[in-house]
Amino acid sequence: MTYCVGLLVEDGLVMVADTRTNAGLDNIATFQKLHRFEVPGERTIGIATAGNLAVSQAVISLMSDGFENSETGILETIYDHPTMFKTAVYVGRAINEVMRLNAGASTTMGAGFDVTMLVGGQVRGGRLRLFMVYSAGNFIEATEDTPYLQIGEHKYGKPILDRAITFQTKLNDALKIGLISMDSTMRSNLGVGMPIDLWLTRRDTMESQVATRIEQGEPYFHDLRERWSAALRSAHQAIPVPPYLKS
Amino acid sequence: MTYCVGLLVEDGLVMVADTRTNAGLDNIATFQKLHRFEVPGERTIGIATAGNLAVSQAVISLMSDGFENSETGILETIYDHPTMFKTAVYVGRAINEVMRLNAGASTTMGAGFDVTMLVGGQVRGGRLRLFMVYSAGNFIEATEDTPYLQIGEHKYGKPILDRAITFQTKLNDALKIGLISMDSTMRSNLGVGMPIDLWLTRRDTMESQVATRIEQGEPYFHDLRERWSAALRSAHQAIPVPPYLKS
Repeated sequence: MTYCVGLLVEDGLVMVADTRTNAGLDNIATFQKLHRFEVPGERTIGIATAGNLAVSQAVISLMSDGFENSETGILETIYDHPTMFKTAVYVGRAINEVMRLNAGASTTMGAGFDVTMLVGGQVRGGRLRLFMVYSAGNFIEATEDTPYLQIGEHKYGKPILDRAITFQTKLNDALKIGLISMDSTMRSNLGVGMPIDLWLTRRDTMESQVATRIEQGEPYFHDLRERWSAALRSAHQAIPVPPYLKS
Repeated sequence: MTYCVGLLVEDGLVMVADTRTNAGLDNIATFQKLHRFEVPGERTIGIATAGNLAVSQAVISLMSDGFENSETGILETIYDHPTMFKTAVYVGRAINEVMRLNAGASTTMGAGFDVTMLVGGQVRGGRLRLFMVYSAGNFIEATEDTPYLQIGEHKYGKPILDRAITFQTKLNDALKIGLISMDSTMRSNLGVGMPIDLWLTRRDTMESQVATRIEQGEPYFHDLRERWSAALRSAHQAIPVPPYLKS
Protein backbone atom coordinates (compact mmCIF):
# COMPACT_ATOMS: atom_id res chain seq x y z
CA MET A 1 0.00 0.00 0.00
CA THR A 2 0.84 3.66 -0.16
CA TYR A 3 -0.50 6.89 1.19
CA CYS A 4 0.24 10.29 -0.32
CA VAL A 5 -1.59 13.55 0.23
CA GLY A 6 -1.23 16.95 -1.42
CA LEU A 7 -2.56 20.10 0.25
CA LEU A 8 -2.95 23.26 -1.81
CA VAL A 9 -3.51 26.39 0.30
CA GLU A 10 -3.33 30.12 -0.24
CA ASP A 11 0.35 30.36 0.65
CA GLY A 12 1.64 27.23 -1.00
CA LEU A 13 1.60 23.51 -1.55
CA VAL A 14 2.52 20.60 0.74
CA MET A 15 3.00 17.00 -0.31
CA VAL A 16 3.50 14.11 2.10
CA ALA A 17 4.22 10.53 1.03
CA ASP A 18 5.15 7.32 2.79
CA THR A 19 7.83 5.01 1.39
CA ARG A 20 6.61 1.49 2.09
CA THR A 21 5.92 -0.98 -0.67
CA ASN A 22 4.73 -4.47 -0.11
CA ALA A 23 3.90 -7.56 -2.06
CA GLY A 24 2.29 -9.51 0.72
CA LEU A 25 3.10 -8.96 4.36
CA ASP A 26 6.49 -10.65 4.20
CA ASN A 27 7.90 -8.76 1.25
CA ILE A 28 8.25 -5.19 2.43
CA ALA A 29 10.67 -2.61 1.11
CA THR A 30 11.35 1.11 1.14
CA PHE A 31 10.97 3.01 -2.13
CA GLN A 32 10.75 6.72 -2.72
CA LYS A 33 7.31 7.67 -4.03
CA LEU A 34 7.66 11.45 -3.90
CA HIS A 35 9.85 12.84 -6.69
CA ARG A 36 10.94 16.39 -7.26
CA PHE A 37 11.83 18.09 -10.54
CA GLU A 38 13.14 21.57 -10.00
CA VAL A 39 14.98 24.44 -11.65
CA PRO A 40 14.92 26.98 -8.82
CA GLY A 41 13.11 30.18 -9.76
CA GLU A 42 11.85 28.67 -13.01
CA ARG A 43 9.84 25.62 -12.05
CA THR A 44 9.28 23.27 -9.14
CA ILE A 45 7.25 20.10 -9.61
CA GLY A 46 6.47 17.35 -7.11
CA ILE A 47 5.10 13.99 -8.22
CA ALA A 48 3.82 11.37 -5.78
CA THR A 49 2.93 7.90 -7.04
CA ALA A 50 0.62 5.12 -5.90
CA GLY A 51 -0.16 1.77 -7.47
CA ASN A 52 2.02 -0.66 -9.39
CA LEU A 53 5.65 0.15 -8.54
CA ALA A 54 7.10 -1.08 -11.83
CA VAL A 55 4.76 1.21 -13.76
CA SER A 56 5.38 4.16 -11.41
CA GLN A 57 9.15 3.83 -11.68
CA ALA A 58 8.99 3.44 -15.46
CA VAL A 59 6.88 6.59 -15.76
CA ILE A 60 9.27 8.61 -13.57
CA SER A 61 12.29 7.35 -15.55
CA LEU A 62 10.60 8.01 -18.86
CA MET A 63 9.83 11.60 -17.87
CA SER A 64 13.41 12.19 -16.68
CA ASP A 65 14.95 10.75 -19.84
CA GLY A 66 12.27 12.18 -22.11
CA PHE A 67 10.22 10.57 -24.86
CA GLU A 68 9.03 11.69 -28.26
CA ASN A 69 5.88 13.73 -28.64
CA SER A 70 4.04 11.67 -31.25
CA GLU A 71 2.62 14.81 -32.87
CA THR A 72 5.78 16.88 -33.13
CA GLY A 73 8.44 14.17 -33.05
CA ILE A 74 10.36 16.21 -30.45
CA LEU A 75 11.89 14.58 -27.36
CA GLU A 76 10.27 16.07 -24.25
CA THR A 77 11.13 15.69 -20.56
CA ILE A 78 9.15 16.74 -17.51
CA TYR A 79 11.07 20.04 -17.56
CA ASP A 80 9.89 21.13 -21.02
CA HIS A 81 6.37 22.40 -20.45
CA PRO A 82 5.28 26.03 -20.18
CA THR A 83 2.45 25.46 -17.65
CA MET A 84 1.42 23.05 -14.89
CA PHE A 85 -1.63 22.06 -16.93
CA LYS A 86 0.62 20.99 -19.80
CA THR A 87 2.88 19.23 -17.31
CA ALA A 88 -0.10 17.21 -16.06
CA VAL A 89 -1.08 16.37 -19.65
CA TYR A 90 2.50 15.20 -20.19
CA VAL A 91 2.43 12.99 -17.07
CA GLY A 92 -0.78 11.47 -18.43
CA ARG A 93 0.95 10.82 -21.77
CA ALA A 94 3.91 9.21 -20.00
CA ILE A 95 1.51 6.90 -18.14
CA ASN A 96 -0.21 6.04 -21.44
CA GLU A 97 3.18 5.30 -22.99
CA VAL A 98 4.16 2.87 -20.22
CA MET A 99 0.71 1.27 -20.29
CA ARG A 100 1.09 0.76 -24.06
CA LEU A 101 4.46 -0.98 -23.55
CA ASN A 102 2.89 -3.22 -20.90
CA ALA A 103 -0.38 -3.84 -22.72
CA GLY A 104 0.56 -7.34 -23.90
CA ALA A 105 1.59 -8.49 -20.44
CA SER A 106 -1.41 -6.83 -18.82
CA THR A 107 -3.79 -8.82 -21.02
CA THR A 108 -1.85 -12.08 -20.80
CA MET A 109 -1.18 -12.01 -17.08
CA GLY A 110 -4.44 -10.40 -15.99
CA ALA A 111 -2.24 -8.25 -13.76
CA GLY A 112 -3.33 -4.87 -12.44
CA PHE A 113 -0.98 -2.18 -13.71
CA ASP A 114 -2.95 0.72 -12.30
CA VAL A 115 -1.20 3.83 -11.06
CA THR A 116 -2.37 7.18 -9.72
CA MET A 117 -0.16 10.23 -9.36
CA LEU A 118 -0.33 13.56 -7.62
CA VAL A 119 1.32 16.25 -9.72
CA GLY A 120 1.78 19.63 -8.05
CA GLY A 121 3.90 22.72 -8.39
CA GLN A 122 4.39 25.91 -10.31
CA VAL A 123 6.04 27.05 -13.53
CA ARG A 124 7.15 30.70 -13.81
CA GLY A 125 4.35 32.85 -15.22
CA GLY A 126 1.68 30.35 -14.19
CA ARG A 127 -0.30 29.43 -11.08
CA LEU A 128 0.57 26.97 -8.34
CA ARG A 129 -1.61 23.94 -9.05
CA LEU A 130 -2.24 20.40 -7.86
CA PHE A 131 -3.57 17.56 -10.02
CA MET A 132 -4.41 13.89 -9.59
CA VAL A 133 -3.58 11.92 -12.73
CA TYR A 134 -5.29 8.57 -13.28
CA SER A 135 -4.10 5.43 -15.08
CA ALA A 136 -6.09 6.56 -18.12
CA GLY A 137 -3.94 9.69 -18.29
CA ASN A 138 -6.78 12.10 -17.54
CA PHE A 139 -6.82 14.11 -14.33
CA ILE A 140 -8.68 16.26 -11.82
CA GLU A 141 -7.48 19.39 -10.05
CA ALA A 142 -7.63 20.57 -6.44
CA THR A 143 -9.72 23.72 -5.99
CA GLU A 144 -10.55 26.18 -3.24
CA ASP A 145 -13.60 24.03 -2.42
CA THR A 146 -11.53 20.86 -2.11
CA PRO A 147 -7.95 21.93 -1.52
CA TYR A 148 -6.52 18.46 -0.96
CA LEU A 149 -6.07 15.30 -3.03
CA GLN A 150 -5.15 11.84 -1.75
CA ILE A 151 -3.87 8.69 -3.44
CA GLY A 152 -3.45 5.17 -2.10
CA GLU A 153 -4.94 4.18 1.26
CA HIS A 154 -6.95 7.36 1.76
CA LYS A 155 -9.71 6.53 4.21
CA TYR A 156 -8.02 6.56 7.63
CA GLY A 157 -6.44 9.96 7.02
CA LYS A 158 -9.50 11.65 5.55
CA PRO A 159 -11.54 12.65 8.65
CA ILE A 160 -8.89 15.15 9.81
CA LEU A 161 -8.62 16.64 6.30
CA ASP A 162 -12.40 16.96 5.95
CA ARG A 163 -12.54 18.93 9.16
CA ALA A 164 -9.34 20.92 9.38
CA ILE A 165 -8.24 21.94 5.87
CA THR A 166 -9.55 24.94 3.99
CA PHE A 167 -7.87 26.99 1.30
CA GLN A 168 -7.16 29.65 3.94
CA THR A 169 -5.26 27.25 6.25
CA LYS A 170 -1.75 28.52 6.97
CA LEU A 171 1.14 26.69 5.35
CA ASN A 172 2.62 25.42 8.61
CA ASP A 173 -0.80 24.18 9.72
CA ALA A 174 -1.28 22.43 6.37
CA LEU A 175 2.07 20.73 6.91
CA LYS A 176 1.03 19.63 10.40
CA ILE A 177 -2.35 18.36 9.18
CA GLY A 178 -0.67 16.45 6.35
CA LEU A 179 1.59 14.73 8.90
CA ILE A 180 -1.37 13.97 11.19
CA SER A 181 -3.27 12.47 8.26
CA MET A 182 -0.22 10.32 7.47
CA ASP A 183 0.09 9.27 11.12
CA SER A 184 -3.57 8.18 11.27
CA THR A 185 -3.02 6.06 8.18
CA MET A 186 0.21 4.48 9.40
CA ARG A 187 -1.37 3.52 12.71
CA SER A 188 -4.21 1.64 11.06
CA ASN A 189 -2.56 0.16 7.96
CA LEU A 190 0.69 -1.79 8.13
CA GLY A 191 1.20 -1.27 4.40
CA VAL A 192 1.91 2.42 4.99
CA GLY A 193 5.15 3.14 6.84
CA MET A 194 8.15 5.27 7.72
CA PRO A 195 10.22 7.05 6.57
CA ILE A 196 8.02 9.86 5.27
CA ASP A 197 8.96 12.20 2.45
CA LEU A 198 7.89 15.79 2.77
CA TRP A 199 7.90 18.53 0.15
CA LEU A 200 6.69 22.10 0.39
CA THR A 201 6.78 25.08 -1.93
CA ARG A 202 5.60 28.60 -1.15
CA ARG A 203 3.43 30.14 -3.84
CA ASP A 204 5.35 32.14 -6.46
CA THR A 205 8.84 31.10 -5.34
CA MET A 206 9.14 28.32 -7.95
CA GLU A 207 11.41 26.42 -5.57
CA SER A 208 11.25 24.03 -2.62
CA GLN A 209 11.34 25.41 0.88
CA VAL A 210 11.14 21.95 2.42
CA ALA A 211 12.35 18.74 0.79
CA THR A 212 13.16 16.35 3.57
CA ARG A 213 12.76 12.80 4.77
CA ILE A 214 11.40 12.09 8.25
CA GLU A 215 13.04 8.96 9.63
CA GLN A 216 11.77 6.66 12.36
CA GLY A 217 12.28 8.34 15.75
CA GLU A 218 12.65 11.89 14.40
CA PRO A 219 11.83 14.00 17.50
CA TYR A 220 9.29 16.44 16.01
CA PHE A 221 7.23 13.77 14.28
CA HIS A 222 7.40 11.50 17.31
CA ASP A 223 6.11 14.36 19.47
CA LEU A 224 3.36 15.16 16.95
CA ARG A 225 2.17 11.54 17.02
CA GLU A 226 2.08 11.48 20.81
CA ARG A 227 0.28 14.80 21.08
CA TRP A 228 -2.26 13.87 18.45
CA SER A 229 -3.02 10.55 20.13
CA ALA A 230 -3.38 12.31 23.47
CA ALA A 231 -5.65 14.96 21.93
CA LEU A 232 -7.92 12.31 20.39
CA ARG A 233 -8.06 10.42 23.66
CA SER A 234 -8.94 13.50 25.67
CA ALA A 235 -11.28 15.14 23.12
CA HIS A 236 -14.06 12.67 23.80
CA GLN A 237 -13.75 13.28 27.53
CA ALA A 238 -14.80 16.92 27.05
CA ILE A 239 -18.07 15.80 25.45
CA PRO A 240 -20.98 15.66 27.92
CA VAL A 241 -22.24 12.30 29.22
CA PRO A 242 -24.81 10.75 26.83
CA PRO A 243 -28.39 11.09 28.12
CA TYR A 244 -29.30 7.57 26.98
CA LEU A 245 -27.88 5.54 29.88
CA LYS A 246 -29.49 6.18 33.24
CA SER A 247 -26.89 5.43 35.89
CA MET B 1 -22.93 0.61 2.65
CA THR B 2 -23.25 0.06 6.34
CA TYR B 3 -21.29 0.76 9.47
CA CYS B 4 -21.79 -1.09 12.74
CA VAL B 5 -19.47 -1.26 15.72
CA GLY B 6 -19.60 -3.28 18.92
CA LEU B 7 -17.61 -2.26 22.00
CA LEU B 8 -17.11 -4.77 24.79
CA VAL B 9 -15.81 -3.22 28.01
CA GLU B 10 -15.55 -4.22 31.64
CA ASP B 11 -18.98 -2.87 32.56
CA GLY B 12 -20.93 -3.88 29.50
CA LEU B 13 -21.49 -3.92 25.77
CA VAL B 14 -22.44 -1.16 23.35
CA MET B 15 -23.57 -1.63 19.75
CA VAL B 16 -24.08 1.21 17.28
CA ALA B 17 -25.44 0.75 13.76
CA ASP B 18 -26.52 3.05 10.96
CA THR B 19 -29.69 2.35 8.94
CA ARG B 20 -28.86 3.36 5.39
CA THR B 21 -28.94 0.89 2.55
CA ASN B 22 -28.19 1.76 -1.02
CA ALA B 23 -28.09 0.15 -4.41
CA GLY B 24 -26.38 2.95 -6.26
CA LEU B 25 -26.52 6.55 -5.16
CA ASP B 26 -30.10 7.07 -6.32
CA ASN B 27 -31.67 4.12 -4.58
CA ILE B 28 -31.34 4.83 -0.89
CA ALA B 29 -33.55 3.51 1.87
CA THR B 30 -33.69 3.13 5.62
CA PHE B 31 -33.57 -0.39 7.05
CA GLN B 32 -32.94 -1.51 10.59
CA LYS B 33 -29.65 -3.39 10.86
CA LEU B 34 -29.45 -3.74 14.64
CA HIS B 35 -31.82 -6.36 16.00
CA ARG B 36 -32.51 -7.26 19.60
CA PHE B 37 -33.65 -10.59 21.02
CA GLU B 38 -34.36 -10.37 24.70
CA VAL B 39 -36.02 -12.12 27.62
CA PRO B 40 -35.16 -9.69 30.44
CA GLY B 41 -33.12 -11.30 33.18
CA GLU B 42 -32.61 -14.46 31.12
CA ARG B 43 -30.90 -13.38 27.91
CA THR B 44 -30.23 -10.27 25.86
CA ILE B 45 -28.77 -10.58 22.39
CA GLY B 46 -27.98 -7.87 19.85
CA ILE B 47 -27.27 -8.69 16.21
CA ALA B 48 -26.00 -6.12 13.72
CA THR B 49 -25.80 -6.99 10.05
CA ALA B 50 -23.74 -5.80 7.07
CA GLY B 51 -23.69 -6.99 3.49
CA ASN B 52 -26.45 -8.24 1.23
CA LEU B 53 -29.77 -7.01 2.68
CA ALA B 54 -31.85 -9.88 1.32
CA VAL B 55 -29.56 -12.41 2.99
CA SER B 56 -29.40 -10.42 6.25
CA GLN B 57 -33.18 -10.12 6.49
CA ALA B 58 -33.65 -13.79 5.64
CA VAL B 59 -31.21 -14.82 8.36
CA ILE B 60 -32.93 -12.61 10.96
CA SER B 61 -36.38 -13.95 9.98
CA LEU B 62 -35.15 -17.53 9.97
CA MET B 63 -33.75 -17.16 13.48
CA SER B 64 -36.98 -15.57 14.74
CA ASP B 65 -39.19 -18.27 13.21
CA GLY B 66 -36.73 -21.05 13.94
CA PHE B 67 -35.37 -23.82 11.73
CA GLU B 68 -34.60 -27.46 12.24
CA ASN B 69 -31.31 -28.57 13.70
CA SER B 70 -30.17 -31.11 11.09
CA GLU B 71 -28.60 -33.33 13.79
CA THR B 72 -31.47 -33.43 16.28
CA GLY B 73 -34.44 -32.58 14.02
CA ILE B 74 -35.63 -30.08 16.64
CA LEU B 75 -36.86 -26.60 15.63
CA GLU B 76 -34.58 -23.98 17.20
CA THR B 77 -34.89 -20.21 17.40
CA ILE B 78 -32.31 -17.61 18.46
CA TYR B 79 -33.75 -17.86 22.01
CA ASP B 80 -32.99 -21.54 22.47
CA HIS B 81 -29.26 -21.65 23.24
CA PRO B 82 -27.68 -22.04 26.66
CA THR B 83 -24.59 -19.86 25.97
CA MET B 84 -23.48 -16.98 23.76
CA PHE B 85 -20.95 -19.27 22.07
CA LYS B 86 -23.74 -21.63 21.04
CA THR B 87 -25.81 -18.63 19.97
CA ALA B 88 -22.98 -17.53 17.65
CA VAL B 89 -22.69 -21.07 16.26
CA TYR B 90 -26.45 -20.96 15.62
CA VAL B 91 -26.20 -17.60 13.80
CA GLY B 92 -23.47 -19.16 11.63
CA ARG B 93 -25.79 -22.10 10.89
CA ALA B 94 -28.62 -19.74 9.98
CA ILE B 95 -26.30 -17.94 7.54
CA ASN B 96 -25.25 -21.30 6.06
CA GLU B 97 -28.91 -22.25 5.68
CA VAL B 98 -29.77 -19.05 3.77
CA MET B 99 -26.63 -19.40 1.64
CA ARG B 100 -27.66 -22.95 0.79
CA LEU B 101 -31.12 -21.76 -0.33
CA ASN B 102 -29.46 -19.05 -2.48
CA ALA B 103 -26.64 -21.22 -3.81
CA GLY B 104 -28.23 -21.76 -7.23
CA ALA B 105 -28.84 -18.06 -7.83
CA SER B 106 -25.44 -17.14 -6.45
CA THR B 107 -23.71 -19.35 -9.01
CA THR B 108 -26.00 -18.41 -11.90
CA MET B 109 -26.06 -14.67 -11.33
CA GLY B 110 -22.50 -14.28 -10.08
CA ALA B 111 -24.01 -12.08 -7.40
CA GLY B 112 -22.28 -11.40 -4.09
CA PHE B 113 -24.40 -12.69 -1.25
CA ASP B 114 -21.87 -11.97 1.46
CA VAL B 115 -22.94 -10.94 4.94
CA THR B 116 -21.13 -10.24 8.19
CA MET B 117 -22.81 -10.01 11.57
CA LEU B 118 -21.93 -8.78 15.02
CA VAL B 119 -23.49 -10.99 17.67
CA GLY B 120 -23.22 -9.75 21.23
CA GLY B 121 -24.92 -10.21 24.55
CA GLN B 122 -25.26 -12.45 27.54
CA VAL B 123 -27.21 -15.54 28.55
CA ARG B 124 -27.83 -16.16 32.27
CA GLY B 125 -25.04 -18.22 33.78
CA GLY B 126 -22.60 -17.25 31.03
CA ARG B 127 -20.30 -14.36 30.19
CA LEU B 128 -21.08 -11.20 28.23
CA ARG B 129 -19.48 -11.80 24.81
CA LEU B 130 -19.16 -10.22 21.39
CA PHE B 131 -18.59 -12.14 18.14
CA MET B 132 -18.21 -11.32 14.47
CA VAL B 133 -19.78 -14.02 12.31
CA TYR B 134 -18.66 -14.34 8.69
CA SER B 135 -20.52 -15.52 5.58
CA ALA B 136 -18.89 -18.91 6.03
CA GLY B 137 -20.61 -19.21 9.42
CA ASN B 138 -17.38 -19.20 11.41
CA PHE B 139 -16.54 -16.35 13.76
CA ILE B 140 -14.05 -14.43 15.87
CA GLU B 141 -14.50 -12.95 19.32
CA ALA B 142 -13.63 -9.59 20.88
CA THR B 143 -11.09 -9.87 23.68
CA GLU B 144 -9.50 -7.62 26.29
CA ASP B 145 -6.69 -6.95 23.79
CA THR B 146 -9.10 -5.92 21.04
CA PRO B 147 -12.35 -4.97 22.73
CA TYR B 148 -14.15 -3.76 19.63
CA LEU B 149 -15.35 -5.30 16.35
CA GLN B 150 -16.53 -3.45 13.25
CA ILE B 151 -18.47 -4.50 10.16
CA GLY B 152 -19.15 -2.63 6.92
CA GLU B 153 -17.31 0.60 6.11
CA HIS B 154 -14.84 0.38 8.96
CA LYS B 155 -11.86 2.53 8.03
CA TYR B 156 -12.98 6.10 8.71
CA GLY B 157 -14.16 5.26 12.21
CA LYS B 158 -11.16 3.16 13.23
CA PRO B 159 -8.55 5.79 14.25
CA ILE B 160 -10.62 6.94 17.25
CA LEU B 161 -11.21 3.33 18.35
CA ASP B 162 -7.53 2.45 18.02
CA ARG B 163 -6.60 5.29 20.30
CA ALA B 164 -9.44 5.66 22.79
CA ILE B 165 -10.90 2.23 23.54
CA THR B 166 -9.52 -0.21 26.07
CA PHE B 167 -11.29 -2.90 28.03
CA GLN B 168 -11.21 -0.56 31.05
CA THR B 169 -13.04 2.28 29.28
CA LYS B 170 -16.19 3.30 31.16
CA LEU B 171 -19.51 2.34 29.62
CA ASN B 172 -20.65 5.93 28.99
CA ASP B 173 -17.29 6.71 27.36
CA ALA B 174 -17.57 3.61 25.19
CA LEU B 175 -21.00 4.81 24.12
CA LYS B 176 -19.60 8.27 23.26
CA ILE B 177 -16.67 6.78 21.35
CA GLY B 178 -19.00 4.49 19.42
CA LEU B 179 -21.05 7.52 18.39
CA ILE B 180 -17.91 9.49 17.43
CA SER B 181 -16.71 6.56 15.34
CA MET B 182 -20.12 6.50 13.63
CA ASP B 183 -20.01 10.25 13.06
CA SER B 184 -16.55 10.07 11.41
CA THR B 185 -17.86 7.39 9.07
CA MET B 186 -21.05 9.24 8.16
CA ARG B 187 -19.14 12.41 7.36
CA SER B 188 -16.87 10.67 4.88
CA ASN B 189 -19.17 8.06 3.33
CA LEU B 190 -22.59 8.93 1.95
CA GLY B 191 -23.59 5.26 2.10
CA VAL B 192 -23.68 5.43 5.90
CA GLY B 193 -26.46 7.59 7.32
CA MET B 194 -28.95 8.56 9.98
CA PRO B 195 -30.91 7.48 11.91
CA ILE B 196 -28.59 5.51 14.19
CA ASP B 197 -29.62 2.56 16.30
CA LEU B 198 -28.03 2.23 19.69
CA TRP B 199 -28.07 -0.70 22.06
CA LEU B 200 -26.37 -1.13 25.41
CA THR B 201 -26.40 -3.80 28.09
CA ARG B 202 -24.65 -3.68 31.44
CA ARG B 203 -22.73 -6.81 32.31
CA ASP B 204 -24.74 -9.42 34.25
CA THR B 205 -28.11 -7.68 33.92
CA MET B 206 -29.19 -9.81 30.93
CA GLU B 207 -31.31 -6.92 29.71
CA SER B 208 -31.02 -3.71 27.68
CA GLN B 209 -30.38 -0.45 29.46
CA VAL B 210 -30.42 1.49 26.20
CA ALA B 211 -32.29 0.50 23.05
CA THR B 212 -33.00 3.67 21.16
CA ARG B 213 -32.91 5.29 17.75
CA ILE B 214 -31.12 8.60 17.24
CA GLU B 215 -32.95 10.60 14.58
CA GLN B 216 -31.59 13.42 12.46
CA GLY B 217 -31.34 16.59 14.56
CA GLU B 218 -31.42 14.83 17.94
CA PRO B 219 -29.87 17.47 20.26
CA TYR B 220 -27.26 15.35 22.08
CA PHE B 221 -25.87 13.72 18.94
CA HIS B 222 -25.90 17.03 17.09
CA ASP B 223 -23.90 18.58 19.93
CA LEU B 224 -21.49 15.62 20.00
CA ARG B 225 -20.80 16.02 16.27
CA GLU B 226 -20.15 19.75 16.64
CA ARG B 227 -17.89 19.30 19.65
CA TRP B 228 -15.93 16.51 18.04
CA SER B 229 -15.37 18.52 14.85
CA ALA B 230 -14.27 21.51 16.91
CA ALA B 231 -11.93 19.33 18.98
CA LEU B 232 -10.30 17.86 15.86
CA ARG B 233 -9.90 21.31 14.33
CA SER B 234 -8.33 22.74 17.47
CA ALA B 235 -6.21 19.71 18.42
CA HIS B 236 -3.70 20.32 15.65
CA GLN B 237 -3.33 23.93 16.74
CA ALA B 238 -1.91 22.82 20.07
CA ILE B 239 0.91 20.96 18.29
CA PRO B 240 4.13 23.00 17.98
CA VAL B 241 5.11 24.54 14.64
CA PRO B 242 7.04 22.07 12.45
CA PRO B 243 10.78 22.77 12.36
CA TYR B 244 11.01 22.02 8.64
CA LEU B 245 9.80 25.32 7.20
CA LYS B 246 11.98 28.33 8.00
CA SER B 247 9.71 31.39 7.95
